[in-house]
Amino acid sequence: MEFSSKLLENAVYEVSQLPGIGKRTALRLVLHLLKQPEQQTYHLANALVKLKDEINFCKNCHNISDTETCEICANPKRDSSIICVVEDVRDVMAIENTSQFQGHYHVLGGKISPMEGVGPQDLTIPALVTKVKGGGVKELIFALSASMEGDTTNFYIYKQLEGLQVATSTIARGIAVGDELEYADEVTLGRSILHRVPFESSLKSN
Amino acid sequence: MEFSSKLLENAVYEVSQLPGIGKRTALRLVLHLLKQPEQQTYHLANALVKLKDEINFCKNCHNISDTETCEICANPKRDSSIICVVEDVRDVMAIENTSQFQGHYHVLGGKISPMEGVGPQDLTIPALVTKVKGGGVKELIFALSASMEGDTTNFYIYKQLEGLQVATSTIARGIAVGDELEYADEVTLGRSILHRVPFESSLKSN
Repeated sequence: MEFSSKLLENAVYEVSQLPGIGKRTALRLVLHLLKQPEQQTYHLANALVKLKDEINFCKNCHNISDTETCEICANPKRDSSIICVVEDVRDVMAIENTSQFQGHYHVLGGKISPMEGVGPQDLTIPALVTKVKGGGVKELIFALSASMEGDTTNFYIYKQLEGLQVATSTIARGIAVGDELEYADEVTLGRSILHRVPFESSLKSN
Repeated sequence: MEFSSKLLENAVYEVSQLPGIGKRTALRLVLHLLKQPEQQTYHLANALVKLKDEINFCKNCHNISDTETCEICANPKRDSSIICVVEDVRDVMAIENTSQFQGHYHVLGGKISPMEGVGPQDLTIPALVTKVKGGGVKELIFALSASMEGDTTNFYIYKQLEGLQVATSTIARGIAVGDELEYADEVTLGRSILHRVPFESSLKSN
């Protein structure tokens, strides 16, 4: 692409560095901003810089939070002895939306991925291990994505906790509610048969 | 969506104001920026604000340009008596890529659209009419999109130029090179038959 302006080219380049946004989409977004009142561009730029500069993570669960301790960790009604291990803030939001979990979270900030150069020390795994060793934690629920990296991360944490008095579980994998069996992939269907649930307990969850 | 941080919520809100970007995508983009070195966020914010603050339009064709007169208008080899009327800088870039046009452009900055409250005065139509009235323009080529708004804009400019010695044309609509007839829509196929080209002249353009 040949641009008629270096300023335009630079803005398009920076926007196209975002994931899933190519040069064409970036140009469309930049031209849209140019047509809008200048306040919109200032607000966008400010919001991004302010977030980056003033971002704070809960000292307990490492979720993004404006306060030293996030609302979930600060809530006395929630059970701090059950900790759900998730990858990032999106997973916390998704699980909170279900209203089915009343424990605490631990946000890892990613998954172990040798391909992308992410090791255990780049995540908040040491803090999690320290927390469990400190006592008071009865169960860890692994809620990472069912991928090679997710499984590796689960297993790494599991090994770190060997010998400690803490139960570990992973969220159930199976056919989504409302899905047809014939369209399910083999691995998921296989797991849903392997980890079948007593009929009585499936009645309770409805 | 319930966010654990006002800063995060604000950044997601501002990003989701961009066209075609919903809240989920905005959150993904913002979390991506958070994982990157802070320089990337600063560069992005700077590039957008700088473009908005220092944006300059060519005084002749109204295309985005870093100089008072853009490279195309300043090029003495280009024919200033033929003006191609386009909507925005993307159309200029697309036509320049074909290397088939050696005239000047006139960038309208949009199309007349009563639905979106865009009238002739919001575009650079008055400047175009003044330019043609000033003399020296032999032909205007309308290259707006073939939509209700594009046709309205073409017709409005055409009426404004009544009585002036200037030829007007629109770019050819027809079956794209390489396309199969059976998949073409009726309007396009109809136009391609109505505006058929003498076979000898089609040979020259190959």
